[in-house]
Amino acid sequence: MTRIIFATGNAHKMEEIREILRDLPCELLSMKEAGIECDIVEDGQTFAENAMIKAKAVCEASGCVTLADDSGLCVDYLDGAPGIYSARWMGEETSYHVKNNELIRLLEGVPDEKRSARFVCAIACAFPDGRAFTAEAPYEGRIGYEEKGENGFGYDPVFYVPEKGRYSAELSPEEKNEISHRGKALRNMYDILKRELPE
Amino acid sequence: MTRIIFATGNAHKMEEIREILRDLPCELLSMKEAGIECDIVEDGQTFAENAMIKAKAVCEASGCVTLADDSGLCVDYLDGAPGIYSARWMGEETSYHVKNNELIRLLEGVPDEKRSARFVCAIACAFPDGRAFTAEAPYEGRIGYEEKGENGFGYDPVFYVPEKGRYSAELSPEEKNEISHRGKALRNMYDILKRELPE
Repeated sequence: MTRIIFATGNAHKMEEIREILRDLPCELLSMKEAGIECDIVEDGQTFAENAMIKAKAVCEASGCVTLADDSGLCVDYLDGAPGIYSARWMGEETSYHVKNNELIRLLEGVPDEKRSARFVCAIACAFPDGRAFTAEAPYEGRIGYEEKGENGFGYDPVFYVPEKGRYSAELSPEEKNEISHRGKALRNMYDILKRELPE
Repeated sequence: MTRIIFATGNAHKMEEIREILRDLPCELLSMKEAGIECDIVEDGQTFAENAMIKAKAVCEASGCVTLADDSGLCVDYLDGAPGIYSARWMGEETSYHVKNNELIRLLEGVPDEKRSARFVCAIACAFPDGRAFTAEAPYEGRIGYEEKGENGFGYDPVFYVPEKGRYSAELSPEEKNEISHRGKALRNMYDILKRELPE
């Protein structure tokens, strides 16, 4: 059975990916579980490139098939910011409550049709033999006028999803997984892995 | 039937991709056939990123599903050069005969085990709804001591393929397609498209 490492330290993401990839013929380990330590400089210009930088670095360090992700929020009115800097925006230590309110402030007086935004998630997979794949998917919505909802994390409370008529943080984990960027990108990567992994 | 644009001006690549994607439920057009003109700055740091920059730019300009590729030769002894600069190396106008002989000169006196090199090809696909994919594959070999063979193009005459016991330019188009970076990456992208395109 192929061992696959998922290059994240985030327990929440690890759970999500275990759930979506559960019937693949593989043993899925976190970097910690695999005993891999690896300093990685994410200096790519896109989500897909940052995900691939992580996947290739850990693949090389471990000799195992490796998955990694990168994601963020792109606000059209802010020319795509915070984008690949979503986690670092306003400083890594700044709470998302503060970040979300700063987004609301920056878009003060901006009408609905100019508040469009999307979460983007890229999943990368690197094989020791040099094969490599990325799958990227968006989750469309707009910046709301207040924070709402207790589910999700990060920018979810400020992200209004017209398709659902609710804020992202108001959706149940199942509802969000079905339409979200990470859910879609992971399911696309599942299809790729299903084909590429030996039975 | 979905219209797919392949973002290249290279007639040779267009033929290759038509052959490999021929039974997909799609109409495959070159940029010229689709009447798309688009200035693209390929300022990515990797093959996959450059391919994606092209695919997304043409997808946005055309509103159609778009494929693009980027490829090059990475020589381990030269720290991966010429890499993403393979086409531009020593100047775009310089003939590959001159480039190949420069590679032979740079590796003068270097033993076989340190002459390892690989062609890498990345194919990117961008959908108007934001889905995006890349597939990347290598073609392993080493830098030879002379130019040999009349097939292929570019660096093929200086690229020795141990698996075949011949230089890449000595392989027939069918032999090369089967093991080459572009053939492998395109077949992987074919599998992705087969799943993603509506029947």
